[in-house]
Amino acid sequence: MSKKIFFITSNNHKVRELQDVMALRKKGMQIEQINDDIVEIKSSDVKKIVLHKAKQSYEKFKISLFCEDTGIFIEELNGFPGTSAKFVFKKIGLEGILTLMRGAKSRKAYMQTAICYIDKDAKEHVFDGIMKCAIAEEIKGNLGFGYDPILIPESFEKTIGEDSSKLPVISARAKAFEKFLEHISF
Amino acid sequence: MSKKIFFITSNNHKVRELQDVMALRKKGMQIEQINDDIVEIKSSDVKKIVLHKAKQSYEKFKISLFCEDTGIFIEELNGFPGTSAKFVFKKIGLEGILTLMRGAKSRKAYMQTAICYIDKDAKEHVFDGIMKCAIAEEIKGNLGFGYDPILIPESFEKTIGEDSSKLPVISARAKAFEKFLEHISF
Repeated sequence: MSKKIFFITSNNHKVRELQDVMALRKKGMQIEQINDDIVEIKSSDVKKIVLHKAKQSYEKFKISLFCEDTGIFIEELNGFPGTSAKFVFKKIGLEGILTLMRGAKSRKAYMQTAICYIDKDAKEHVFDGIMKCAIAEEIKGNLGFGYDPILIPESFEKTIGEDSSKLPVISARAKAFEKFLEHISF
Repeated sequence: MSKKIFFITSNNHKVRELQDVMALRKKGMQIEQINDDIVEIKSSDVKKIVLHKAKQSYEKFKISLFCEDTGIFIEELNGFPGTSAKFVFKKIGLEGILTLMRGAKSRKAYMQTAICYIDKDAKEHVFDGIMKCAIAEEIKGNLGFGYDPILIPESFEKTIGEDSSKLPVISARAKAFEKFLEHISF
């Protein structure tokens, strides 16, 4: 019998990404999406954001669940767009990011995902994962979503937009989720 | 006898700006700053942000008080930086904004301030003000704070950074505050 875990998110891409990780790990668990838009707090810390999200969701649904938040931190831009990645993407797009990166000394960046799981005893557990990467010189590929077409994972040559096959292993989201899976296996 | 009104903010510039408006209106009221950093929600609407801020502050201090939030919405950038003005300023600065605005068809923008006042009966009142402006081609002057050196108010030729003398009359903050003052005069 497969166990269900509830994922509170309005983003279908994220659900699919985590289902891919799950398939790879052969955990026999099923992710069930609850499509809900939670009020988010402003914070530069993905862990704080996700903790607040999960608590709010638990208050509302009264079931064991998890939430996720991912930020993108670009060295040359002092950590911009950070936890505002989604907002910045919607407003200035990848073109805007590349414009800001023209002539940049460093193209280093990292993605950080935090997952907060609230168990059946209302206890909070936060897990995080990081993927180091570089910002590409131009937009390439259309796989994945969001910043994927300008993110080149460390020790790779292509953007995730061009080759997303390694995501279930290397992505910040996969790494955080893996820690979470290890936790709930006990 | 002068009446006191409590302003919850960690920004001294905003206190001074509102004191200038108050002086101009000869209202004989005194603004007292409570230097507090409130958890803010992510929203594209300054009114929603300020309502949440004020409610949280009222919960904490249990006194009649007001909060303020100001966003800057640039037409060419789809309303960026919007309610994330402070965060964006800290990360990419005015240089970043001007870089994004290179070759822009429109330099139109507006600032919007919302003020939420919670009265002694815990009732919420929200007021807002708008200042139309243009984004300058370059950074000019060092008066004011934040975006002032690149904001040219409508029907003016200088940035606020160069000439901030009209702020107590024309600024979004002044306009919202004026509505608030009219309200509490009754």
